[in-house]
Amino acid sequence: MKAAVLTDYDPSLSRQQFVLQQEVPDPEITSPSDIVVRIGGAGVCRTDLHIIEGLWRERVSVELPYIMGHENAGWVEAVGGSVESVKVGDPVICHPLLSRGQTLAARRGNDMHAGGAFPGIDSDGGYAELLKTSERAVVKLPQSLAPKDVAPYADAGLTAYHAVKKAAVNLVPGDYAVVIGIGGLGHIGVQVLKALSGAAIIALDRSEMALQLGRESGADHTVRADGTELDQVLALTGGLGAQVVIDFVGEGDSVAKGLKMTRNAGFYYIVGYGGKVEISTMDMIVSEKSIVGNLVGTYPDLVELMALADRGLVKLATREYRLNDANSALHDLHRGQVKGRAVLIP
Amino acid sequence: MKAAVLTDYDPSLSRQQFVLQQEVPDPEITSPSDIVVRIGGAGVCRTDLHIIEGLWRERVSVELPYIMGHENAGWVEAVGGSVESVKVGDPVICHPLLSRGQTLAARRGNDMHAGGAFPGIDSDGGYAELLKTSERAVVKLPQSLAPKDVAPYADAGLTAYHAVKKAAVNLVPGDYAVVIGIGGLGHIGVQVLKALSGAAIIALDRSEMALQLGRESGADHTVRADGTELDQVLALTGGLGAQVVIDFVGEGDSVAKGLKMTRNAGFYYIVGYGGKVEISTMDMIVSEKSIVGNLVGTYPDLVELMALADRGLVKLATREYRLNDANSALHDLHRGQVKGRAVLIP
Amino acid sequence: MKAAVLTDYDPSLSRQQFVLQQEVPDPEITSPSDIVVRIGGAGVCRTDLHIIEGLWRERVSVELPYIMGHENAGWVEAVGGSVESVKVGDPVICHPLLSRGQTLAARRGNDMHAGGAFPGIDSDGGYAELLKTSERAVVKLPQSLAPKDVAPYADAGLTAYHAVKKAAVNLVPGDYAVVIGIGGLGHIGVQVLKALSGAAIIALDRSEMALQLGRESGADHTVRADGTELDQVLALTGGLGAQVVIDFVGEGDSVAKGLKMTRNAGFYYIVGYGGKVEISTMDMIVSEKSIVGNLVGTYPDLVELMALADRGLVKLATREYRLNDANSALHDLHRGQVKGRAVLIP
Amino acid sequence: MKAAVLTDYDPSLSRQQFVLQQEVPDPEITSPSDIVVRIGGAGVCRTDLHIIEGLWRERVSVELPYIMGHENAGWVEAVGGSVESVKVGDPVICHPLLSRGQTLAARRGNDMHAGGAFPGIDSDGGYAELLKTSERAVVKLPQSLAPKDVAPYADAGLTAYHAVKKAAVNLVPGDYAVVIGIGGLGHIGVQVLKALSGAAIIALDRSEMALQLGRESGADHTVRADGTELDQVLALTGGLGAQVVIDFVGEGDSVAKGLKMTRNAGFYYIVGYGGKVEISTMDMIVSEKSIVGNLVGTYPDLVELMALADRGLVKLATREYRLNDANSALHDLHRGQVKGRAVLIP
Repeated sequence: MKAAVLTDYDPSLSRQQFVLQQEVPDPEITSPSDIVVRIGGAGVCRTDLHIIEGLWRERVSVELPYIMGHENAGWVEAVGGSVESVKVGDPVICHPLLSRGQTLAARRGNDMHAGGAFPGIDSDGGYAELLKTSERAVVKLPQSLAPKDVAPYADAGLTAYHAVKKAAVNLVPGDYAVVIGIGGLGHIGVQVLKALSGAAIIALDRSEMALQLGRESGADHTVRADGTELDQVLALTGGLGAQVVIDFVGEGDSVAKGLKMTRNAGFYYIVGYGGKVEISTMDMIVSEKSIVGNLVGTYPDLVELMALADRGLVKLATREYRLNDANSALHDLHRGQVKGRAVLIP
Repeated sequence: MKAAVLTDYDPSLSRQQFVLQQEVPDPEITSPSDIVVRIGGAGVCRTDLHIIEGLWRERVSVELPYIMGHENAGWVEAVGGSVESVKVGDPVICHPLLSRGQTLAARRGNDMHAGGAFPGIDSDGGYAELLKTSERAVVKLPQSLAPKDVAPYADAGLTAYHAVKKAAVNLVPGDYAVVIGIGGLGHIGVQVLKALSGAAIIALDRSEMALQLGRESGADHTVRADGTELDQVLALTGGLGAQVVIDFVGEGDSVAKGLKMTRNAGFYYIVGYGGKVEISTMDMIVSEKSIVGNLVGTYPDLVELMALADRGLVKLATREYRLNDANSALHDLHRGQVKGRAVLIP
Repeated sequence: MKAAVLTDYDPSLSRQQFVLQQEVPDPEITSPSDIVVRIGGAGVCRTDLHIIEGLWRERVSVELPYIMGHENAGWVEAVGGSVESVKVGDPVICHPLLSRGQTLAARRGNDMHAGGAFPGIDSDGGYAELLKTSERAVVKLPQSLAPKDVAPYADAGLTAYHAVKKAAVNLVPGDYAVVIGIGGLGHIGVQVLKALSGAAIIALDRSEMALQLGRESGADHTVRADGTELDQVLALTGGLGAQVVIDFVGEGDSVAKGLKMTRNAGFYYIVGYGGKVEISTMDMIVSEKSIVGNLVGTYPDLVELMALADRGLVKLATREYRLNDANSALHDLHRGQVKGRAVLIP
Repeated sequence: MKAAVLTDYDPSLSRQQFVLQQEVPDPEITSPSDIVVRIGGAGVCRTDLHIIEGLWRERVSVELPYIMGHENAGWVEAVGGSVESVKVGDPVICHPLLSRGQTLAARRGNDMHAGGAFPGIDSDGGYAELLKTSERAVVKLPQSLAPKDVAPYADAGLTAYHAVKKAAVNLVPGDYAVVIGIGGLGHIGVQVLKALSGAAIIALDRSEMALQLGRESGADHTVRADGTELDQVLALTGGLGAQVVIDFVGEGDSVAKGLKMTRNAGFYYIVGYGGKVEISTMDMIVSEKSIVGNLVGTYPDLVELMALADRGLVKLATREYRLNDANSALHDLHRGQVKGRAVLIP
């Protein structure tokens, strides 16, 4: 099959060709629960840039060359002998994590902490024509949703949904929620917030294009990150700050400001990464704030997100690229020129 | 002041004049925390008909003649010496319960279980020009909301909000919620459900006018209660029933059918009353259902509901009557001819 | 293998021989996830008497003759090809339900609602030397726990744990919890309540022997069900009733009284069955009570219960019978002569 | 009355006399909700040392000289005209915060965020014979509890209870909880954890005396903070870390190590202060940990803690000093020579 293969790290992200177009062997069914999916679309994620930079080298073990792509959707191409819940031809979206489902975390539904492979991160992913996954990782799509249109939900959408779902239980009408970073994840985050809570939503970003996407996604207020963003948020929230801040940036001054715009007894959710949390324990106790890490999402999270998408309550802004244009997609993302999410189509 | 006074019970609801227009003494400030409110609007509730029937005689002690009206909003007319949070002239909506705020239930925020008077039920209410209440019971209105337009939120809206808020924590996208009875409470219930959850909403009523109101309120599906409603709900929900059923009727076959259309491990919320729950303990354990009673709502519930109304996420369908037309309003309600909620205006 | 087989129903429970000792074929591995367990102990449950009476005939389809026994523990005797989490010889306790783990309920951890067989109820169970189960249904035992001593945890303990865990989140110190029926389930319920909450526990039963077991299990108060039990509970709880009532009887006047001894805004949990819930919707709304059905428990529930047992926080009162004395065990249970739980040992 | 008065800050805590014994005017009833309490005992808190150091100068405005002491219990000496819930002579413990109860935070029960004075911190406290407080701040004591024996519950106990109650909802049997710092707060924390959860408790401290107190308080394991504490906790928890870590120290390497000994998807609670949280956002997302600030506790929290104390489930280790020995108590605390909590008795 055709694939866009990562052959070398590039710490400065300076190369023209991050990945190389190659012909590689097709994945094969080797276990009774295996499924091979014909890719309809593979999302391009900022994490892919971090992988190319080598940022994940110490955390996961994967040998180059390998195939990136952890946001995958398509059609079932082949199934192992024990697969019952889908059949060849079914359209599916792939939960990014493969677990046997036997650990206690898995039995509690916490697929993120259940162990197992992460195709596209620690094994071959979906920048290709075919992807090997397993029965526990596929969600059958409703007829309303085409694989290429939903692929980025598999990780970007799932991660945004998971964090927002955790945040929504801490919101009541009258509260404010700030969403920092209205990109591929953030614009889904805004929509999910709107669907799951009655809080007023403040979208915050440096770019006017992103704020426009925030408005289209349902934000009640927008704040330009021009250095005065903390004051703007405090002004909107009666000087108190927001009950919930969801930070899809997580680097630069986003963290310090995000924490400061969180009101007392409120919650600051970290989704983006690259930066650092620094706060005194005295500030933590006087304010009684919570700082919450967020990692991908569960299988039921993905099913729930597909239900929202099916009903039109969440829409994905995508820009399509051909698989053999993968490098254009990665460079456009790197330059901040993708509104919403880039998707590779074989 | 002028008031519409209940002088006699009428168990068959057959009289032309349920209440009499009379001149009565103005209420006076007697405690430092007292507030007198000039009524802008007083909602007319099915409970008022039940009071006239004598249905509440055994549960609350009140001597006739007295003034009904437990859904009140208006402007602060006079305040006691210790009142700090509002001043004369402020527009307010009145939480229906008066408590000192010292009991443990009050300290936990459960104003419904905190003891205290219930004006309009066990003491003089708002079918009048003035109402005596207290500082702990008034919520200041935002400029966007006029007293006469929001009065029914004080009980009908608050009760619907409270029940739906309890239900919403048990709903995720992909779930169904059935709202039985799309009247004064139910049409608010549908809107609150839409604001607080990502579940698909099924509005159920006998009347096409009510179903139309359900659609306008945001229901995704409507079901006519024509004898086949159970089958219709099962068909919509893949044969499983709904995760949440909120019953604003609570009498006739609504209860038995409402329980049956609740899916296994689901929740049936009772708001309307007059009927009876009958179910075997074996059915309860095999299905693992929950049956939940619901009573008015807390003070923060009312604040939250006003936040939704202020942002236009909840709208109230009202029909205005003059205070001296109170009997027309009560009769129209009795005949099922009020779309939304009747409000008396002095 | 040897087994105690149910060959005919006995609606009046009047026969000497409820089950017959027979030689039957050994169960065999037919799927890669199958496990055969050599029974160390099989609990005898009131449900077994209800099965003999035919009470479950309409709810589950099973052809006689078959083998009862849904509370099983023992040692792994044989495993299918894909089993990884246990090996031959490991001591295990069996979760009573077998599911593939693919349904959404399973993915959310709700094994009770995940579909799948229920050995001992709808297929052959553990009144035998060997039992066929599957990898997803076995919990490896710590060294401190012998199969014959823990078998009744598989259903009686699990059901009590599941209900109490649900109840415990509604209890704070200063609250009261009533446990109705201090038998095989109830005495575990009392211990789990004590481990998971700071509420004061009231044990209620007709029998002084049971109340003694309640005291040994950690109840703070005991109430004899002699007709005055409602008054006794009200007297203990300042006239208000208990925040939580867990009813392991669920028949006779237990239900009506259990509901009445639940305080306003409190919770009544149904575990035992045979009776009927009857309450007006008006009583439900005025009291704002919740009535909650409870069904077995999840796989993580069983793991958690084993953790409590391992630490000595929950102890099981058992009485051992040989497998070929199964009829004695069933008759003793029927006559109310088992303190704690009967266990059959091959 | 007699009082121990703070007249000057002492940043290096080097003076012999931190406070001076003086005769000051008695407090007087000035508002109808005021209460004057005759002090039975006043707890001495590490925060008092921080006040003397000047650490709180920037956060609260209080003019020296003033009277410290925010952990107070005694008997009602005088009441204002509107007080109904207690009468002269009643034994009471004082919630440390005085609020009018009108803000939304107060109505939701969050007394810590409700505004209002904090006697002993920003106004005169209980290092004296009499204290002025208000009706909303007193909890009547059961007969089993003497004021001098419970005074430290008013803040040390309340703070420990509040943090542990928040933590307990995240614990199930099989989980581990680490308590860092087994002093005045920590030894109550261990007991509350034992009362409210089925988790195994690991007590961690530098001092063998403190670990002994941890054992007496019910810890299942103790870990000496000798530099190897992280490894010891990992060894006890199967290499995974603990689901919950409650840090009563919050300074030095306690924070970094506390976060590291928290397992993935686990919770780190900050109660002690003086140090700093530093962690990369990448570590936060990969681990999906939560960092939670904790501040005093609510009025219902204090009622619940008194219920535990009344039943003997929580016991306070105290050491009594006369009010005119306040400096000895403060110096002993500063030198780490108080096992449990110091209490001043007039």
